[in-house]
Amino acid sequence: MSRVVKLAVIPGDGIGPEVIAEALKVLDAATAGSDVTLDTTHFSLGAARFLETGDVLTDADLEHIKEHDAILLGAVGGVPGDPRLANANIERGLLLKLRFSLDHYVNLRPSVLYPGVASPLAEPGAVDFVVVREGTEGPYVGNGGAIRQGTPHEVANEVSVNTAFGVERVVRHAFAVASARPRKKLTLVHKTNVLVFAGSLWQRTVNAVAAEYPDVAVDYLHVDAATIFLVTDPARFDVIVTDNLFGDILTDLAAAISGGIGLAASGNINPSGQFPSMFEPVHGSAPDIAGKQLADPTAAILSVALLLAHLGLDAAAENVNRAVVADIAARTGEARATAAIGDAIVSTLSID
Amino acid sequence: MSRVVKLAVIPGDGIGPEVIAEALKVLDAATAGSDVTLDTTHFSLGAARFLETGDVLTDADLEHIKEHDAILLGAVGGVPGDPRLANANIERGLLLKLRFSLDHYVNLRPSVLYPGVASPLAEPGAVDFVVVREGTEGPYVGNGGAIRQGTPHEVANEVSVNTAFGVERVVRHAFAVASARPRKKLTLVHKTNVLVFAGSLWQRTVNAVAAEYPDVAVDYLHVDAATIFLVTDPARFDVIVTDNLFGDILTDLAAAISGGIGLAASGNINPSGQFPSMFEPVHGSAPDIAGKQLADPTAAILSVALLLAHLGLDAAAENVNRAVVADIAARTGEARATAAIGDAIVSTLSID
Ligand SMILES: CC(C)[C@H](C(=O)O)[C@@H](O)C(=O)O
Ligand SMILES: CC(C)[C@H](C(=O)O)[C@@H](O)C(=O)O
Repeated sequence: MSRVVKLAVIPGDGIGPEVIAEALKVLDAATAGSDVTLDTTHFSLGAARFLETGDVLTDADLEHIKEHDAILLGAVGGVPGDPRLANANIERGLLLKLRFSLDHYVNLRPSVLYPGVASPLAEPGAVDFVVVREGTEGPYVGNGGAIRQGTPHEVANEVSVNTAFGVERVVRHAFAVASARPRKKLTLVHKTNVLVFAGSLWQRTVNAVAAEYPDVAVDYLHVDAATIFLVTDPARFDVIVTDNLFGDILTDLAAAISGGIGLAASGNINPSGQFPSMFEPVHGSAPDIAGKQLADPTAAILSVALLLAHLGLDAAAENVNRAVVADIAARTGEARATAAIGDAIVSTLSID
Repeated sequence: MSRVVKLAVIPGDGIGPEVIAEALKVLDAATAGSDVTLDTTHFSLGAARFLETGDVLTDADLEHIKEHDAILLGAVGGVPGDPRLANANIERGLLLKLRFSLDHYVNLRPSVLYPGVASPLAEPGAVDFVVVREGTEGPYVGNGGAIRQGTPHEVANEVSVNTAFGVERVVRHAFAVASARPRKKLTLVHKTNVLVFAGSLWQRTVNAVAAEYPDVAVDYLHVDAATIFLVTDPARFDVIVTDNLFGDILTDLAAAISGGIGLAASGNINPSGQFPSMFEPVHGSAPDIAGKQLADPTAAILSVALLLAHLGLDAAAENVNRAVVADIAARTGEARATAAIGDAIVSTLSID
């Protein structure tokens, strides 16, 4: 009984193709001999494609991507300040367009400080939480505008849109995640004392869903206070649920305190399964080090573990996670090529 | 030739009165024998006043406060979860109302890691920057609303309002601050790739004013990346200019990496002098430790130094700063009462 998984692969720009090559190596090895057959399609999308064709993401691209079961993305974005990209905004036109079009309302970002990783802040084990970031609302909706642009009377507004529908579904997902973890703790992060309308909706929604999860302990932190605790007491966090922008900020900070952005994986998930979910390292395209085998593919490989778990291939996901943890613990500080890290992780997969 | 400074004092709630008592002790000592005479008026404002009278900040209070040259505020806010305060929102009705009514468009928040302060992250000297946070615009304007509240069809919006007028004046102030510092470096922090209209206004304004300050080096960071650098390389920052909400988040994080919120001072400044500026520690009212002489008054005392500098009393400001730095360096880790810290700092003021 064989199962075909149609995977859309978007290597992207800069170090994207290098880390994705290693991620695919690991994905192949982790599914080899299983009943899963991977059917991968590569999509050329990102700054390079834009410079060649003028397209960021066409309707045809999007429709083609939708035919897949999942997406693996490296990183997109050209060289900062490239004048040819001045009006492109690859991030909005590609990355955010995918998240919004594919209704990725759960942006799942685990933070774990693994044994062997130097953190100035915490001991291994002290950082083990996951941020459930809303992915389709908030200040990311593109609902901004300006009048009198370029004049002394310019007014530029940005609207954060929050709906009961959108908040409730991500809050429910976060409670389910919290309830399945040993510590069963959920922290809402917002700024309810200033953003009173959005904050009230988030707080009321968390209160309402909490009643259905008596096993989950719930607390609340303002986003400013949350940054303090991430530095001084990261062990207090288990599951954080928060809006799109606060989640963006907190997950980069979370990466910084748990070994750096080179280890941070993420899933842009559509739990309903209506559209393919997308897995990507949190890091950017780092064009300055691209093509030199200097990038660490670990975040991309950990994203593969999230992808496998999402597909229900829990044993394979666990296998990849274990191999990564072993590789990290064995690091000597000596520099290794991107491919050497991928090979090392493949070699410690326990393939049976 | 004597100069009378009319000071409005708002001790507030929780530990506010305790730390303000020490701050006033230091302020008196630092101005003793000078040509400055302090004329202080205490205002009973905060959660306690609200519980007594139902008032948060009356028009009469506000008019009376406006007659002063400056304001010293401790901290406001009642016990979290107190049902009698559920609909009060002391933060918005008092603190933010003061900042907005008194047009405190510069929120100045220095971060210095002093010798003797343990930071898990950096060596003393490595953290020495100041955040110039916009104080009267952005998502703080109270321009939110909701429809169908409490129903499954609720939509709650929050509008960030940014004007050329408002952005330019704070950016100009930040350049002046940067130009007067030895390193002369200014970093704009925003999220221009997502908040494209507001981001564009901020970026264009910084570019335009930069042309008038060829001596100031300018760069840009997205807010998420800025949190990473605050943890991994705080020495890269000299002056940060940013919007109201990003400034709120970054300055709490900045406090966390430079010895904690107990040392973080701030000024809410109206540089035009039309209205009194307000100086306050960044910390909150901490009702759990109030009245026990457990609070560290250092942030309130450093706020007095900012107040003195704002009044043009640079020597007195320097004197207070020096005394605080000496006190911090001499700390043994033994607990001291709030008043003992104030007394120690007074005793090391070099009064001539
Ligand atoms: C590139 C950018 C639009 C994106 C975001 O803000 O979500 C990134 O920072 C992230 O966190 O995935
Ligand atoms: C109390 C709150 C409204 C305030 C703010 O968000 O500005 C505080 O966090 C601060 O930074 O002074």
